[in-house]
Amino acid sequence: MSLIRPNVDSLEPYVPGEQPQEPGWIKLNTNENPFMAPQIAVAVAEAATDLLRLYPDPLCVALREKLAARYGLPAAQIICGNGSDELLTLAVRATAGEGDRIAFPTPSYSLYDTLARIQNAFPVPVELGPRWELPVDELGAVGAALTLVANPNAPTGTPYSLDALDALARAVEGLLLVDEAYVDFGGETALPLVNRHENVLVLRTMSKAFGLAGVRLGYAFGSPRVIEALNKIKDSYNVDRLTQVAGIAALDAYDAAMAHNRETAARRDRLAEILHTRFGFRVWPSATNFLLVDTGRYPVKALYEALKRHRILVRYFDRPLIGNCLRITIGSEPEVSALLRALESLLL
Amino acid sequence: MSLIRPNVDSLEPYVPGEQPQEPGWIKLNTNENPFMAPQIAVAVAEAATDLLRLYPDPLCVALREKLAARYGLPAAQIICGNGSDELLTLAVRATAGEGDRIAFPTPSYSLYDTLARIQNAFPVPVELGPRWELPVDELGAVGAALTLVANPNAPTGTPYSLDALDALARAVEGLLLVDEAYVDFGGETALPLVNRHENVLVLRTMSKAFGLAGVRLGYAFGSPRVIEALNKIKDSYNVDRLTQVAGIAALDAYDAAMAHNRETAARRDRLAEILHTRFGFRVWPSATNFLLVDTGRYPVKALYEALKRHRILVRYFDRPLIGNCLRITIGSEPEVSALLRALESLLL
Repeated sequence: MSLIRPNVDSLEPYVPGEQPQEPGWIKLNTNENPFMAPQIAVAVAEAATDLLRLYPDPLCVALREKLAARYGLPAAQIICGNGSDELLTLAVRATAGEGDRIAFPTPSYSLYDTLARIQNAFPVPVELGPRWELPVDELGAVGAALTLVANPNAPTGTPYSLDALDALARAVEGLLLVDEAYVDFGGETALPLVNRHENVLVLRTMSKAFGLAGVRLGYAFGSPRVIEALNKIKDSYNVDRLTQVAGIAALDAYDAAMAHNRETAARRDRLAEILHTRFGFRVWPSATNFLLVDTGRYPVKALYEALKRHRILVRYFDRPLIGNCLRITIGSEPEVSALLRALESLLL
Repeated sequence: MSLIRPNVDSLEPYVPGEQPQEPGWIKLNTNENPFMAPQIAVAVAEAATDLLRLYPDPLCVALREKLAARYGLPAAQIICGNGSDELLTLAVRATAGEGDRIAFPTPSYSLYDTLARIQNAFPVPVELGPRWELPVDELGAVGAALTLVANPNAPTGTPYSLDALDALARAVEGLLLVDEAYVDFGGETALPLVNRHENVLVLRTMSKAFGLAGVRLGYAFGSPRVIEALNKIKDSYNVDRLTQVAGIAALDAYDAAMAHNRETAARRDRLAEILHTRFGFRVWPSATNFLLVDTGRYPVKALYEALKRHRILVRYFDRPLIGNCLRITIGSEPEVSALLRALESLLL
């Protein structure tokens, strides 16, 4: 008998973006938000008492009621997780056994493939169209236990229409998970599909739109049947006390966060224009807080390394279809200016 | 195709102890610690800044180096998790495929059975001896991909010897996970086995011994091969920023925590003596921060409910072998006194 399962032993793990712990970096590599509502830090600091010695609410009742009021779905159709990554894992474990198919478009979030392999399920990537269109019929034809779609997509930035996702929900046999990590920067949410189809789960995170990547809070909306299944298999105390407090405070500061997200979207569009006109890059249309940038005749790895010497981190992908692209997070106005200055000194 | 896997659909989920969110309860039901070092709250409050908008260190480097120094094993042999529950789940997913056997003594932590079923693995409970002795030969004969042993055991409180666990590590074919949630209240740690056997993983939590149930921090020690496998399949950012800060602060306050744990152990032994002499209960020997108490002619459910009317929460189990037992956490001195007064008013 092998000590470790063969599918785990042979796994190429998902590699997250660099997270330097020392200060002084301009981090445009993991789509963090330059804005976090200051009330959140205050609320968390106030909650740092010896109540931390008691287990958290296993069902996040107060937080889920707040989410219910904000998004207009009952708390029984909401589950919270230790980041949306945990909810992705739970969805895989609830729906797909060994050898079952898990479908997802490609290029997309490469964790989807990794999660399928960890489960010893069978990953089925389906290529997006030439302009990253969602391949609804091809995904529907896979016969997957679980279909994973990021909307808007990462790392392409592409938004999908509600009609396309509605058609996909009808086309797939199993669960359709719509991962809306970036939807608050300009996408169209699939939340209306949750009560139209029992098999739709809509996933959100506070990492991007609320500027809370460091606290790990994801949440999902689905049919009572699906949410009940996820609740059955989650760890009892999967969301800690301070994270629940941060989540409630973030929802209280919702309007400020969304105002900043609109500014980010406007800054994104200005940056896209400049990258195209000044450097000749091909910039893919984005409804997210990042841009996928085809750098043309400039090799991406060299460009990534040159920017790193300027203490600016961006991301590139050694993968088909996007092998010549940088993914650049929309930072603050000074961060974007620093990026442009660095590119000018390197390329012009 | 079924929307949810049949093993999940049919699952009876693990039911955690009650966690009332309003104040005024004496909680002796989920083995929380009455003491939490005040420096931890200070450190967490100071860390509640807008750095929370950045992802945490995915590998908990600073925390793991601190753990390495404390426990004398290199950081490469340590992994941190969102509570030890997450690390239990990771161990299951790394070692056991569908239909593989997962062995554990019974009565023990009932989550072990649930985790096996979620994985669609085959749970094999093996009865403890008449005084809760570890059934080394019987466990070794199962041929399990994973064997889960709580040391000291919950909910019986029984400590096992290093020799017994050493023999078990040699007897099993797959991974032996020794869950030491309660070891700091008087058990003998299996840490020396980690470098003796590649297949031993020792699990710890800050929930009990460090009084940090609300922050969710577990850690495990194992061979490089096993730790590498768990790292491959964990969520990238499974331990949030504030939890990493709390863990480091807790290790800085290690001596204070252990001094309080020794007081808890002494209070436990005094309470055991009183429960036996004053009420005639049979109290099982315990090396933990709780007592398993056979209440004899008093039905446990009625006793549990009567204590609840006194705003005191304890736990009972509707399960074989321990069906006539209460499990009582060793609270603070005033909490233990309140328990004894309530029992006197109810029973004498």
